[in-house]
Amino acid sequence: MDSAVLLDILGNENRRRILRLLSHKPCYVTEISEYLGVSPKAVIDHLRKLEEAGLVESRTDNQRRKYFNISRNLRLEVDVSPYEFDMKSAYPASPNLDVSTCQYLSLNVQYGNTRSGDAESVSDAEAGEIASLAEELNCLEELKSELSLAQRWVHGRITDVLDQLSEEVDETGQNAIRSEILAALAAEAETVGEISKETNAPEHVVEGHLATMAERGIVERNDGHWTLSG
Amino acid sequence: MDSAVLLDILGNENRRRILRLLSHKPCYVTEISEYLGVSPKAVIDHLRKLEEAGLVESRTDNQRRKYFNISRNLRLEVDVSPYEFDMKSAYPASPNLDVSTCQYLSLNVQYGNTRSGDAESVSDAEAGEIASLAEELNCLEELKSELSLAQRWVHGRITDVLDQLSEEVDETGQNAIRSEILAALAAEAETVGEISKETNAPEHVVEGHLATMAERGIVERNDGHWTLSG
Repeated sequence: MDSAVLLDILGNENRRRILRLLSHKPCYVTEISEYLGVSPKAVIDHLRKLEEAGLVESRTDNQRRKYFNISRNLRLEVDVSPYEFDMKSAYPASPNLDVSTCQYLSLNVQYGNTRSGDAESVSDAEAGEIASLAEELNCLEELKSELSLAQRWVHGRITDVLDQLSEEVDETGQNAIRSEILAALAAEAETVGEISKETNAPEHVVEGHLATMAERGIVERNDGHWTLSG
Repeated sequence: MDSAVLLDILGNENRRRILRLLSHKPCYVTEISEYLGVSPKAVIDHLRKLEEAGLVESRTDNQRRKYFNISRNLRLEVDVSPYEFDMKSAYPASPNLDVSTCQYLSLNVQYGNTRSGDAESVSDAEAGEIASLAEELNCLEELKSELSLAQRWVHGRITDVLDQLSEEVDETGQNAIRSEILAALAAEAETVGEISKETNAPEHVVEGHLATMAERGIVERNDGHWTLSG
């Protein structure tokens, strides 16, 4: 889903209240209207927007009354700093994702053992199963908040590094893009085309900054391939 | 900052465009107005809202013209699933944060060595310093996207576990809170007060669900302390 569409949707207090309510249980329009203290007509308008965005879907119960629930898992992340305004939305990654292939990150998730083996009755086995799931849930929630903390730490570190870099290469404060060009070079982008793609900046802009930084001995060109000096 | 205030602010396309512009460079009102194709008056209104939220600040240049820049680092995360609507905003964690104390998470961040030692001239040392910073920036950006991927993976895993748990304890789909109560028990909340605090649910609601789940042998009470059965 487009992050801008998602932010437009979430930028309304009543739509946020509807989503919060539906995350607790599926609801009829009348329930939502009473809970929010908002006319059914307005609720229907909000629900239509939420449905169009694919966030909410409706079903019909035995009495043919329509009820609504959240249909989609998704995650929105927005980073704001003097150097970036970055928004990203994404569906959950597949549970089968092999997170052990990450280069900079290890997850040490150990769940309690499922304790079914010696269960005396079906009921005990079920209770064991439920206890295991509850432990897994608790562990995943802890991991989620550690990841969130780690991400805030990274966000702060990136800003620090950009502060230092701009002091060196962007004296006027008008050329924040230079730091991104340098990061692209560090990521082994070598041609103007590659750097332009990596930084989302037009090639002639990238070329201008590379030329200026080359004059100052910060970057070097060999056979049309750019590298960091030093 | 309050996440709701932040979402209200970001729920406007022109305010998002202003933030994107300011993340590239500080700007005057006239520049923003021309770039956006929006009247200066409207731009001033948006900037006032952004200033009130503390996202943007203004300074005065030598010709006493006012220019604007992003004043604050912050990060917003929103999770949506059939079980949750969670929004969180936070400032970056301190760079001094000891991420090695995380229980479930290890970060393996190794930067290239700073190569100043044998530098032949000040200029070479500086170029080496800049190259190191650019490498660090590139590495942090990779880590950021790995963390984001890991978070999406966790989000998906949590939803899976909640799917399984609700099948066991929430047949009607009206009692999503029960899974949260079980997770609180797994996190060693024991009294109704602790569970209520952990789940943000009123004590009498928590008590009702605990009683129902105790009847079914899912949880147990001993001396007013609740634990998971099994």
